[in-house]
Amino acid sequence: MTRVGREVRVRRYPVGEVSPEDFEVVEVDVRDPAPGQVLVRNTWTSVDPGLRIRLRTDAPAGYFVAFPLGQAMDGVMAVGEVVDSCASGFAPGDLVSHAQGWREFAVVDPGEVQLGGVGTLTRLDAEDAEPSWFLGPLGGMGLTAYAGLHVVDALKGGETVWVSAAAGAVGSLAVQIAKLSGNRVIASAGSDDKVAWLRDELGVEAFNYRDGDLAAHLNAVAPDGIDVYFDSVGGDHLEAALDHLNRSGRVAMCGSISEYESEPKGPRNLFLTVSKDLTLRGFRGSSNLHLMADMQRHMTGWLRSGEVVSRTTVFEGLDTAPQALAAMIAGRTTGKTLVSIG
Amino acid sequence: MTRVGREVRVRRYPVGEVSPEDFEVVEVDVRDPAPGQVLVRNTWTSVDPGLRIRLRTDAPAGYFVAFPLGQAMDGVMAVGEVVDSCASGFAPGDLVSHAQGWREFAVVDPGEVQLGGVGTLTRLDAEDAEPSWFLGPLGGMGLTAYAGLHVVDALKGGETVWVSAAAGAVGSLAVQIAKLSGNRVIASAGSDDKVAWLRDELGVEAFNYRDGDLAAHLNAVAPDGIDVYFDSVGGDHLEAALDHLNRSGRVAMCGSISEYESEPKGPRNLFLTVSKDLTLRGFRGSSNLHLMADMQRHMTGWLRSGEVVSRTTVFEGLDTAPQALAAMIAGRTTGKTLVSIG
Repeated sequence: MTRVGREVRVRRYPVGEVSPEDFEVVEVDVRDPAPGQVLVRNTWTSVDPGLRIRLRTDAPAGYFVAFPLGQAMDGVMAVGEVVDSCASGFAPGDLVSHAQGWREFAVVDPGEVQLGGVGTLTRLDAEDAEPSWFLGPLGGMGLTAYAGLHVVDALKGGETVWVSAAAGAVGSLAVQIAKLSGNRVIASAGSDDKVAWLRDELGVEAFNYRDGDLAAHLNAVAPDGIDVYFDSVGGDHLEAALDHLNRSGRVAMCGSISEYESEPKGPRNLFLTVSKDLTLRGFRGSSNLHLMADMQRHMTGWLRSGEVVSRTTVFEGLDTAPQALAAMIAGRTTGKTLVSIG
Repeated sequence: MTRVGREVRVRRYPVGEVSPEDFEVVEVDVRDPAPGQVLVRNTWTSVDPGLRIRLRTDAPAGYFVAFPLGQAMDGVMAVGEVVDSCASGFAPGDLVSHAQGWREFAVVDPGEVQLGGVGTLTRLDAEDAEPSWFLGPLGGMGLTAYAGLHVVDALKGGETVWVSAAAGAVGSLAVQIAKLSGNRVIASAGSDDKVAWLRDELGVEAFNYRDGDLAAHLNAVAPDGIDVYFDSVGGDHLEAALDHLNRSGRVAMCGSISEYESEPKGPRNLFLTVSKDLTLRGFRGSSNLHLMADMQRHMTGWLRSGEVVSRTTVFEGLDTAPQALAAMIAGRTTGKTLVSIG
């Protein structure tokens, strides 16, 4: 049977801000799965800040490689339904996650380790879960938030934790996990709407970093300093954190979205790391796969009880994926940014 | 009895390079110890890179405060002999260490905690030790080297460790401890003489960072990358380390001597901390006093057996202390820089 599907390809690496013009959406023939493979019809695909780092020839060492030009984008998470299976353990109708997103149909090899294991083809139990949760709180986003707090020993509670980009996919989960772990949480975001959501729905102290300066906000909300900073922003946010961290403070370094489209500058006050015995701990969710089961167990309970809220910004149709990415990097989305496909 | 002694005072905070002109040496009356106090005649006093950070009005938060102008410099290590004691536990003739260096006579209060405890008045057992060792391998220098390797888990051995400023007081001890712990050690320093000493006397691979570029040196000597970087330099050295660290690598951040006399710039490649799961661990010796006994036990054995060599650059007479500091920061001294007093 001949199937036709659409896929997004990178036309050129953007310089500065991402634009939908940097991508093209093309129609391709979808081949049948070979023995051992599975054909999936994607229903949701993920839009992550990390994709921006892969849209450049000088992707940082140790990170996932750059997307090649003019090809389907491998290594982007998706959730979908098996439509044809030549692999044992997978049958038509199964809900699965995998790493061949940004396309309508994917032929997936279950044996292939993707995104450090996070993206390897996995059958999902959606009985009490929204399918899209597996791209958010029950997937890589939940793992990243949980692992970040874990690696800086912030799950024991009793501390003051600042989370930046706190209305984002990972940030909003880090806020909620840190709070449920017994910490005092301070959240920052870039619009009054996001701040209102953080205060009113997630119940934490929050400020709009675009309104006034970071130091003044932190002084006002945390006059006794902070113990942990969960960093997805870098740049001026990281500098402000170094200034405000207490002795033996820790930074969970998750990303640096403020610098993905410009020439990065390091924090000028890095010596405070020495003078205050600070620890800067870089980490990636995919390097902490051993925490996935723990995280999912906690998170499933929290989602069912309503203790964790999963907010999404959904774009409709595969063609909107490039717009969704641009909107997310510009800070115009809240929670997990997703594309719903057909 | 009226005693007269000399002391060094800061006349002005240097801008850029330290000069002896920034100090003055004055003669003062030495008062008798009050009840509970001890009078010490200093015989050795310490010259540390950290002093430079205290010669400025904007000393970094969390660090020891700036030296006040026109006063004796409290908080600099010295070794000396008790000449008069009104405190129990101390008698004339005792060898002691304390934190009132850069002067000939010091009236010390044994109850006062100095330099986080490292500088509190302590009676020394010099039976098998050189007195000056207590300002080097058996004192704060040894503690800093040992603690730095400890906090980044580099005492277990089996890794590749790069130590910068490796011919310095802390660096040369870090090199030797890291090697004795079973690591492969790469040492860098700023002159061919220092490199020859590191190779021939300490038996490690070494390069002169002033001869060629850091990346080329590191590629040549550690083509498989490094696991740990012991940083006393900051700046371009820290950037090169981030580039060359393997996944899950660690940096023991001890200081940043390349930036003490200029406007610091942060590492532009800090995102590698995220992409390679790196840990940057700032630390101070004085924050790790709980490791002092362990360190001294190991170090005493190593010094006696000759497995650790303690090299010093000695300046004669209190008046030379400012010169000694300038020479050390400029990289013209090897090992621990000391001033011998009278």
